[in-house]
Amino acid sequence: MSDLPARVHLHEEGPREGFQIEPGPIASADKVAFIEALATTGLRHIQCVSFVNPQRVPGMADAESVARAIRRRDGVRYTGLWLNLRGMQRAMETPLDIAGAVGLSASEQFSIRNQGQDTAGSLQEQRRLLAFCVEHGVPVDSAIVMTAFGCNIEGAIPPARVVERVSQLFGLLDEFGLQVPVLRLADTVGWANPNAVASVIGAVRERWPQQRLGLHLHDTRGTGLANALMGLQLGVDTFDSACAGLGGCPFAGHAGAAGNICTEDLASMCEEMGVATGLDLDAMVECAHLAERIVGHQLPGKLMRGGTLTRFRR
Amino acid sequence: MSDLPARVHLHEEGPREGFQIEPGPIASADKVAFIEALATTGLRHIQCVSFVNPQRVPGMADAESVARAIRRRDGVRYTGLWLNLRGMQRAMETPLDIAGAVGLSASEQFSIRNQGQDTAGSLQEQRRLLAFCVEHGVPVDSAIVMTAFGCNIEGAIPPARVVERVSQLFGLLDEFGLQVPVLRLADTVGWANPNAVASVIGAVRERWPQQRLGLHLHDTRGTGLANALMGLQLGVDTFDSACAGLGGCPFAGHAGAAGNICTEDLASMCEEMGVATGLDLDAMVECAHLAERIVGHQLPGKLMRGGTLTRFRR
Repeated sequence: MSDLPARVHLHEEGPREGFQIEPGPIASADKVAFIEALATTGLRHIQCVSFVNPQRVPGMADAESVARAIRRRDGVRYTGLWLNLRGMQRAMETPLDIAGAVGLSASEQFSIRNQGQDTAGSLQEQRRLLAFCVEHGVPVDSAIVMTAFGCNIEGAIPPARVVERVSQLFGLLDEFGLQVPVLRLADTVGWANPNAVASVIGAVRERWPQQRLGLHLHDTRGTGLANALMGLQLGVDTFDSACAGLGGCPFAGHAGAAGNICTEDLASMCEEMGVATGLDLDAMVECAHLAERIVGHQLPGKLMRGGTLTRFRR
Repeated sequence: MSDLPARVHLHEEGPREGFQIEPGPIASADKVAFIEALATTGLRHIQCVSFVNPQRVPGMADAESVARAIRRRDGVRYTGLWLNLRGMQRAMETPLDIAGAVGLSASEQFSIRNQGQDTAGSLQEQRRLLAFCVEHGVPVDSAIVMTAFGCNIEGAIPPARVVERVSQLFGLLDEFGLQVPVLRLADTVGWANPNAVASVIGAVRERWPQQRLGLHLHDTRGTGLANALMGLQLGVDTFDSACAGLGGCPFAGHAGAAGNICTEDLASMCEEMGVATGLDLDAMVECAHLAERIVGHQLPGKLMRGGTLTRFRR
């Protein structure tokens, strides 16, 4: 009935997802303290900041200073996000770990509204990024298809469209003789359901059976962990997630916005099912409480309230 | 990979679960208005109140007056909960739909602390209840095993223990020549994970392959809908749930308390997977907003914030 992986890799996106959406200013020192606390939990990869236009995302205007202030811990990758070459160049001037990534939105309308480019234009931008990576010896480590399950503009996305976008991304990578270790399928605006996860994964696997897959899920309609469970049952072993479920801001009136699936809730489910995460759940819960103190309001994570089960076991 | 039912039955427990845990008083008229709104969504069964000791649960002191004030809608069952014969007798003096139920806790320690009786004592109490039902011609429609997946006192519960309790309940029902249409397995304090759901269901089905099963799940650690998904994949078609995720009170410092899985979130997942619920999701979301206005604080349901997907579909 299932093909659960023995071990999963959780990419922590809380600092980037969470702090960019908060309406109020978050002190750089708090961001750094949170990232440093996360690094003690067993997490191997923390996405710390995004290098985006500070006029559009004021909460990330301090990306460089946060990136420079982090006291690094061995064995942890500290990364950033960017949407274009300018952002990547900014990231390269910091001590962050730099790897290239390519991505396309399955929904063309979403691409136009959010990236300001249609699929053709976005592919051209990705081509410039890849050329830059190759020229500067920067590794390229992931490809992502956004809105892979649906979007609020175009509605449901057929799996064949996701296959088309993956084909476009892999074709582009081919131009540079590149392959990526992980292809990530993103439920950018929370449309996925477990059946859709199975359909999209099935369609992609049929064409690229050997490609390792990752899931980037948002808990917009409560099905985040159920969608993750379906991924696990299909052998997916790489997930993006956010401590405390950071990223949505249900208490500040951001209608419809919801964060990534919650790292410690997902990790608890995995560990309880015998899927190793490498995380110290109690330490993750402490980080979730720290996140709440920093943002100054309740966050959606459940384990931090319910408590880890390890302490009740005999 | 799955054996999804074509249709599920959702038993709404929000009014009972939710309003008994709230720290402040909830006006009887608000309870009635909420129950009447729920009855317009397509729900067929609403558990409205509990007939328990008003000294211990002051929020349910108005059970009788709420039960009497509800304007009933055809096709909807309005029920109450009781823990002993005295409670059942109180319920029978109201217009509520009356059916008997038997239940045991898988955890003996939980039984002692919560029902004030060990398993033997609890069985004796159930025997009195069944005798009363038979004597008064009251149908008996469900059996439930509480703490079927674990409890904070005894820790994890082995599936064999659940089988033992089911055997005790069915043996008791046999004494009266009774069978129940549904056996409910309850994750009373939020210990379940999808694998445990599969293990317990598997163990029960091995012994009673024809018994229809229901799940009563709490979202204490975020895995509520993932656990429900596993139930659905195994053909379970009956779930207890609570509008807006009522029942926990994360904002009032009830550490660890968490409500039932959220009715409209579960219903949305089901409908998106092609499993019919008979519910009008937008009407359920309106009820969830009403619940928040009544309790005066945020509730954990997600669909009410993310919005139903039906309105975005083309």
